[in-house]
Amino acid sequence: MAELRGDFARHTSSEFNDELEALCADLLKMGGLAERQLRLAIECQSEFDSSLVDQIKEAENSVNAWEIKIDETVASVIARRQPTASDLRLILVISKVVRDLERAGDEASKVAEMAQKSAESEKPSAVGHSEVRTIGDQVLKMLGDSLTAFARMDADMALDVARNDKEVDQIYQSALRALSTVMIEDPHQIGNVLNVMWVLRALERVGDHATNIAEHVIYLVKGTDIRHLSVANVEEAVMNAPDVDER
Amino acid sequence: MAELRGDFARHTSSEFNDELEALCADLLKMGGLAERQLRLAIECQSEFDSSLVDQIKEAENSVNAWEIKIDETVASVIARRQPTASDLRLILVISKVVRDLERAGDEASKVAEMAQKSAESEKPSAVGHSEVRTIGDQVLKMLGDSLTAFARMDADMALDVARNDKEVDQIYQSALRALSTVMIEDPHQIGNVLNVMWVLRALERVGDHATNIAEHVIYLVKGTDIRHLSVANVEEAVMNAPDVDER
Repeated sequence: MAELRGDFARHTSSEFNDELEALCADLLKMGGLAERQLRLAIECQSEFDSSLVDQIKEAENSVNAWEIKIDETVASVIARRQPTASDLRLILVISKVVRDLERAGDEASKVAEMAQKSAESEKPSAVGHSEVRTIGDQVLKMLGDSLTAFARMDADMALDVARNDKEVDQIYQSALRALSTVMIEDPHQIGNVLNVMWVLRALERVGDHATNIAEHVIYLVKGTDIRHLSVANVEEAVMNAPDVDER
Repeated sequence: MAELRGDFARHTSSEFNDELEALCADLLKMGGLAERQLRLAIECQSEFDSSLVDQIKEAENSVNAWEIKIDETVASVIARRQPTASDLRLILVISKVVRDLERAGDEASKVAEMAQKSAESEKPSAVGHSEVRTIGDQVLKMLGDSLTAFARMDADMALDVARNDKEVDQIYQSALRALSTVMIEDPHQIGNVLNVMWVLRALERVGDHATNIAEHVIYLVKGTDIRHLSVANVEEAVMNAPDVDER
């Protein structure tokens, strides 16, 4: 799990400050659980083990419970503390990020379901395993990095996550092309290949969620909303903007 | 576009009330654009027309701009008005719903891209058209209904959306099975079938986003957070809960 850097300590009310720190710490705990869910799901793909499925289910339940708990805390902190400016921005971002974490966890569960399906199939196959491993490792790293970028409010690290997402998209697209060829050359593999394609799709979505989190970090640090910009435009926007704290 | 019912008029400050009404109206405008994006994308699937693609792109840009504008208004209203209780809940829900609308619009754009790809392919085919039409019409209705349920704060209508999602999932799963069979029986169709599968997947996701919106409406009306419950449990929770206003 990403470590929380000490610079949330910028508030006049120390109690409020404690609450904000606790909220960020909760978000990172939830993130750690979503990461765990994903790591186990990827493991499941290379070596299926039904005990892993139980652990994933458990992590999923915790992630879901955290989503609701953090949303409630967000509402309660806003109602009691009436935050403005950067505190409010931080709290609203937390409320968006929980959604992305929950979604990333959901995709991880789908990956695990597919692993189960494939383990139970009559014709198990190793087709696509290397693609799953490559993309799986990449998006797992992206998710971890997006959380670390959040914990450290590190816009450069967040920008790297957005860059990695472009790479993952390219690997994903070329994996899909290669897998279509396998299908055409060996129609007996169609069922297995479809399975792998859904897994890759779910993993690619995790990369999107990590990128959303990273975009929120950039917004918090730079004050620039970079959603819906291309990576090149994002880089320009980020390079040219001073940090919010330095204005 | 869904019409806004007049019962947001429950605030002591009439200016604040106007702002909340305007925020809800903006959300519904954004929703109307996302619906339009989806309707055009589905049309594109049955009869490809490149001028539709331009209109979809235009709607997408507007949806994206609305997302950013509404998020900014949310932050500004909270900072200036310091809402609590049901007003705050409404505002925080709006900030979640914009995300689902933007995502639904994104999926619509993917559907249009796939239509373009298949129109440009050497072997255009009608395979899967009826499945696309069935699921497309269903999720378009779900998206519209979720917005109407929001505008009217109608928990029953929202519950219907969640029920429809179960149906769509079943139709989706059986369409995927039928399409796999087509692939196996006629490997020349593999490329076309894959295309249709991605389209169905994107449409099924739109249904998920409509359901998220519906769940938020139920939360606002009933005060019960029903995310992560099964439909049966949701029905029980909703039937047994009085409306928030009636407590």
